[in-house]
Amino acid sequence: METVETLHMNKGAGETSYAMNSFIQRKIISLTKEATEKAIMEILSSRRSPIMKMGIADLGCSSGPNALRVMLEIVEAINAASNMLDRAAPKELMLYMNDLFTNDFNNVFASLPSFHTRINQGKGNDSKNNGYCFVSAVPGTFYGRLFPAKSIHFVHSSSSIHWLSRVPGGLEDKNGRGLNKGNICISKNSPNCVLEAYSQQFKNDFSCLLKSRSQEMVYNGRMVLSFLGRQSMDHTSSNCYYQWELLAHALMIMVSEGLVEEEKVDSFNTPYYASCYEELKIEIEKEGSFMVDSHEAYEVDWDDGMYLQSDHDLLGTMSKGERFSRTMRAGVESILKYHFGNHIMDDLFQRYTTLVEDHLSKTRAKFFNFIISLVKLH
Amino acid sequence: METVETLHMNKGAGETSYAMNSFIQRKIISLTKEATEKAIMEILSSRRSPIMKMGIADLGCSSGPNALRVMLEIVEAINAASNMLDRAAPKELMLYMNDLFTNDFNNVFASLPSFHTRINQGKGNDSKNNGYCFVSAVPGTFYGRLFPAKSIHFVHSSSSIHWLSRVPGGLEDKNGRGLNKGNICISKNSPNCVLEAYSQQFKNDFSCLLKSRSQEMVYNGRMVLSFLGRQSMDHTSSNCYYQWELLAHALMIMVSEGLVEEEKVDSFNTPYYASCYEELKIEIEKEGSFMVDSHEAYEVDWDDGMYLQSDHDLLGTMSKGERFSRTMRAGVESILKYHFGNHIMDDLFQRYTTLVEDHLSKTRAKFFNFIISLVKLH
Repeated sequence: METVETLHMNKGAGETSYAMNSFIQRKIISLTKEATEKAIMEILSSRRSPIMKMGIADLGCSSGPNALRVMLEIVEAINAASNMLDRAAPKELMLYMNDLFTNDFNNVFASLPSFHTRINQGKGNDSKNNGYCFVSAVPGTFYGRLFPAKSIHFVHSSSSIHWLSRVPGGLEDKNGRGLNKGNICISKNSPNCVLEAYSQQFKNDFSCLLKSRSQEMVYNGRMVLSFLGRQSMDHTSSNCYYQWELLAHALMIMVSEGLVEEEKVDSFNTPYYASCYEELKIEIEKEGSFMVDSHEAYEVDWDDGMYLQSDHDLLGTMSKGERFSRTMRAGVESILKYHFGNHIMDDLFQRYTTLVEDHLSKTRAKFFNFIISLVKLH
Repeated sequence: METVETLHMNKGAGETSYAMNSFIQRKIISLTKEATEKAIMEILSSRRSPIMKMGIADLGCSSGPNALRVMLEIVEAINAASNMLDRAAPKELMLYMNDLFTNDFNNVFASLPSFHTRINQGKGNDSKNNGYCFVSAVPGTFYGRLFPAKSIHFVHSSSSIHWLSRVPGGLEDKNGRGLNKGNICISKNSPNCVLEAYSQQFKNDFSCLLKSRSQEMVYNGRMVLSFLGRQSMDHTSSNCYYQWELLAHALMIMVSEGLVEEEKVDSFNTPYYASCYEELKIEIEKEGSFMVDSHEAYEVDWDDGMYLQSDHDLLGTMSKGERFSRTMRAGVESILKYHFGNHIMDDLFQRYTTLVEDHLSKTRAKFFNFIISLVKLH
C-alpha cells in the first residue's frame, strides 16, 4: 500500500488534529532555522547579480500553524540576507507548499491573510520596492517530480523524510503471514529480513527524492532536510523506534483482551524509517548531483516544544504522556484507521498514553533529529 | 467588504455543496470547449519550435467535478493540437488551479489520482515520450497578481468574472441607509447611482484583471473568458439580473413575515455584475495589452445541464425550480450567511424555490453567457 493513499496528518483544528498537536515538529522546525538562514545566505551571496525569480519548496509542509511558519521564516531569512548583502530582494518569490494530496491544504490557506500581513509588515517603508510572494500548494509525493525543471533555489523539509513512500515489500512469508510478528515497525526483535526490507525501501525512496530534486533545482541551489534518524549503523541503537514499540505494545494488550486480532497486528507495518548519516551519504554520493555542506544532530525530548503553545488551555491540564500520545495520534491515526478501523482508536491511544506515561516516569525519552544541508553541484 | 473574505462556493460534497449543484456551470464549461481548443491550437501553431514549459491557469476553478474537468479538457486539447501539428507535446505542463483562499481545494485534490489516471490513459503507448503535468493550487484573487512574470501561455476562466472583487462603494446615503432599497443587486428599479457604482466597480476590477495577466502572460498567449453577461448597454435588458430579483423577493417575503429586518435587506448587495461586450472592449482597448480574437454569446436556460448528472439519484425527484434554487444556494450562500446569519438559509431558499418554480412555469428563463477570446499583444 502506497503511503500516498493512506498517510495524512489529522485534519482540521480540533482536539485530535495535527494543527493542535504538532509541538515536537514545531520544536524541530526551530532547530532548523540556523541551517535555513545559512543556506539562504549562501544561495544569495554566491551569485554576482540579485536573483529576480526565486523558487522555494517546503516538502511535507503538513497543515496547522507550522506550515506557513516555515515559509515566513524563509521569507524573513531572504529579506535579512538581501539587506546584509545590500542587494534588492528577489522581485518574485514562488513559495511552493508540498504535501500528499490528502493533506489539509484548506487549513493551510486559511492562514494566508495573516501570512501576507506579516510579510508586508516586515517590508516596512520599502514596500513599494518589494516584490511578490506567490504561495501555491503542490500536492504529490516528494519521492517523484513535483516542480518544473531548474525552477527551485531552496528546498526545505522538516519531519517528513522519515516517512517512506510505502510499507516495504517482503514483510510477509509465502503464506501471507507477517514476518515482523508482534511489531509494527523496526524493533529490537525484528528479524534481519525486516531490517533489510526497510533499509532497501529507504534507499530507493531517498534516491528518488535526490533524482527528482536534481532535475528541479538550479545550480548551487540548497536543500535543508531535517528528520528523525538514528545515531549509528545499528538499527536498534538509541531506542530510535521506541515510540513504535510502545504502540505495538498497546496493540498487543488489545490482542490479549480480545479487542484486536493478533494477525491484524502481525500484518501491519508502519512506513517509517530512522536513517543514519552514513546511509544518506552513500545515496547522495551514488546519485551524484548534490554535495553535503553540513550535517548535525540534536537530541529532542519526547516532551520538547510542548510548552510553546501555552495559550492553548487544554494542554495545561494534560500529562506529558497524554501530550506525546496526542502528537503521535495526530501523525499516524490515518494509517492505523485504514488497517484497524476507526472504532479502536480511542481505546488504543488510551492504552498508549498509559504506556508512554510509565516510560517517561522512568527515563528521559528522546529522539535524534538530523539536519543535513546539501548543495546542488551542476 | 471584499469578496475575498466572504465568497466561496459551498464546500464538501453534501446535498447543498457546489460539487453536487453546479450543473449550469458545467453546461457553460462545455460551451467554452471550442474556444479553448482554438486558442490552444493558435498558441502551439504560432511558434516555430515546440513549447517546452507551458503554463496554464484556470481562474476561479472552484471545487467539485468541474474543477479538474476543465484542466483535463485543456490537456487533451494540447495533446490533440500537438498531434495535429505533428510536434512533441510540451515536456512540462504547469496547471495552476486558482480560486479565493476559502475555496475547497481539498475537494479538488481528492480527484487528483483519477485525473492523473485519465491523463496517462490519453498518452497511450507514447507514455515514455510524454512529459510532466504539475498541478498546483494558487489561492488568491484574480483581480491581482497570482503568477510569476511571463509564465502563462493560456488562461481559462468560466463562470467567475461576473463576481466583482467587492460590493461597490457608494451604495449608502450619508446616513448609512441603503440606496438600493428592496434590491440585492442591480434591478429594474435600482436608482442610477447604483447602476453607476456597479459599473465603475466592474471597470476597475476588469482592468486589474487585464493588467495582472498582461504581466504574467507570454507574448501571443491566449485568454478565454466565459461569464454571464447582458446583451446590450441597457443594464436591465433581457432580465439578466432576474435570479437576484427573485432572491430579493424571497427576502422581502420574509421581511413581511417579520423574519428578516427590512434594513438588513436594504443594506445588502451582491458583488455580481453582468457586463456587456461594449464595456469589455473599452477596458481591453484602454489597457492595451490584449486584442479581442473572437467573441460569442449563448443563451443558457436556467435548467440547462441539469440532466447531465442523472446518476445522482436525488436529482430525479426534484423539480426544475428546486434544482435551480440549489445551484444558486451552492454559489451564494456564503455571502448571504455572512450578512443575514445561517439560521434563515433553509427558510429563504424554500421561498426562493417556490418563486423560481412559479417563474419557470410561466416562461423560459435564461442567462446570456459570453465567451471572449483574447490574444496577448506584446
